[in-house]
Amino acid sequence: MDAAPDFTPLAEEAPAPHRAAVTGTLYGVGMGPGDPDYLTVRAVRVLERAHHLVHFCKAGRRGNARTIADAVVRDPAREWPLAYPYTTEIPADSPEYLAALAAFYDDAAQKLADELGAGRDVAILSEGDPFFYGSFMHLWRRLKDRFPVEVVPGVTGMSGCWTRAGTPITWGDDVLTVLPATLPAADLARRLRDTDAAVVMKLGRHLPKVRGALKEAGLLARAVYVERGTMKGEHVVMLADKPDDAAPYFSMVLIPGEGRRP
Amino acid sequence: MDAAPDFTPLAEEAPAPHRAAVTGTLYGVGMGPGDPDYLTVRAVRVLERAHHLVHFCKAGRRGNARTIADAVVRDPAREWPLAYPYTTEIPADSPEYLAALAAFYDDAAQKLADELGAGRDVAILSEGDPFFYGSFMHLWRRLKDRFPVEVVPGVTGMSGCWTRAGTPITWGDDVLTVLPATLPAADLARRLRDTDAAVVMKLGRHLPKVRGALKEAGLLARAVYVERGTMKGEHVVMLADKPDDAAPYFSMVLIPGEGRRP
Ligand SMILES: C[S@@+](CC[C@H](N)C(=O)[O-])C[C@H]1O[C@@H](n2cnc3c(N)ncnc32)[C@H](O)[C@@H]1O
Ligand SMILES: C[S@@+](CC[C@H](N)C(=O)[O-])C[C@H]1O[C@@H](n2cnc3c(N)ncnc32)[C@H](O)[C@@H]1O
Repeated sequence: MDAAPDFTPLAEEAPAPHRAAVTGTLYGVGMGPGDPDYLTVRAVRVLERAHHLVHFCKAGRRGNARTIADAVVRDPAREWPLAYPYTTEIPADSPEYLAALAAFYDDAAQKLADELGAGRDVAILSEGDPFFYGSFMHLWRRLKDRFPVEVVPGVTGMSGCWTRAGTPITWGDDVLTVLPATLPAADLARRLRDTDAAVVMKLGRHLPKVRGALKEAGLLARAVYVERGTMKGEHVVMLADKPDDAAPYFSMVLIPGEGRRP
Repeated sequence: MDAAPDFTPLAEEAPAPHRAAVTGTLYGVGMGPGDPDYLTVRAVRVLERAHHLVHFCKAGRRGNARTIADAVVRDPAREWPLAYPYTTEIPADSPEYLAALAAFYDDAAQKLADELGAGRDVAILSEGDPFFYGSFMHLWRRLKDRFPVEVVPGVTGMSGCWTRAGTPITWGDDVLTVLPATLPAADLARRLRDTDAAVVMKLGRHLPKVRGALKEAGLLARAVYVERGTMKGEHVVMLADKPDDAAPYFSMVLIPGEGRRP
């Protein structure tokens, strides 16, 4: 019913003077929380055009960001999976794991640099928003001073989760605290007591500890558990009603704020 | 180059059994941080189809959410501005202001209910994400139990701002605290000292107080000031280099985290 949308073109479509760049552009593409309807217009455009679509995954598996892209991209030739060296085999904060990860990122950055240097555009698919706890940031850090970069912000996983939980997260002057479930129990409890609203990310095997911290902070009755928000297999339940403490990687706990409501 | 995207249809396009509803749907549409390229695919779809496009504004002015929609919607007949009763004339936390706001929301909700009851779809345009400090929430609260609701999550203003500031906001196990600048100075300083990363929203006339709290917390040198992130008139500067304390409504301060970086 209206005129065609007028969105910003990718570099390739820009007027001639801008086409002169010999190196490709590094894109960090926010893929949103899971439902491909929540991709941005810009993300769709970049996915359609980039030469390489890089996604992190466990060895032999498709990454979740890649699954989201299926709604737009059906071109396996452009796919470039980066398989993490380990996942849950050794503790994520052990020096051994960090050294293996650093070598993995160094190696991946070098390979991407070769492509960028040859003039090809590389899009790194990032769950949610790329600059919010994203693996993309580790490649960005290694490449940003050498190549043109465009980051496409995305709807975060937490926005997708509070949307599907059907609850606003912050009202009026509420303070929101975002906590990784990896923190020590006492620290979690202290910070939960001292905030109006909270999001606890990266649950996985930490859920029993998080449940304990919420109890200690007197917040268990307000806590909502969201698994795979906006994705296939989505599950929303009050944490107090969740019968077990099993939580996959894509899960979080929300404590909605209760601030000013005129 | 690829097949057409397969996105979820709006209700009108669903198979016949779903068309039976006699009431319209209330949509809360996340409009993203400002650049219309950061609208989601779903938001564009809803904007194209809804019967009414409601947006909050100051009397006689266009709301910012409405300006974002210009890239998609060129149909003034569907526009429905809701002008706030006061804006900066009286303090936002005075009983007088809250009473005026409550009456304003009650009245608006009643008018929207009439349209929804008559089977028309009403989309409320919300800056950023609708469930994150959004005015939409006040209408949603009054209408949600009477009508079908769909909230379309959006890229938050803060994601837009840290993207344009060119800085990741959280790494590894960083704790992120989102603070309204309306909090008392001592509370701001205490909370800033006790977090790894922070976003201070709703600056406006509170910027001198926020600057003071950042100084007290030893964080002034790390603070980035972002005005109108991703919009026309965008301005990004280290807060320490900003010569004055003038800040418009659409501005925030970011303290990027410095967590684990393998
Ligand atoms: C490394 S962080 C990445 C966050 C991402 N960059 C974002 O903006 O949401 C991964 C964590 O995000 C959370 N997460 C992201 N998307 C989610 C979803 N759709 N449902 C539930 N949790 C999600 C989970 O807590 C998960 O452990
Ligand atoms: C009432 S809150 C609404 C937040 C919105 N729902 C969101 O998700 O970003 C308004 C505040 O958001 C911040 N904000 C939103 N978009 C912004 C932008 N593009 N640039 C700077 N600040 C922004 C400002 O601090 C402003 O005072």
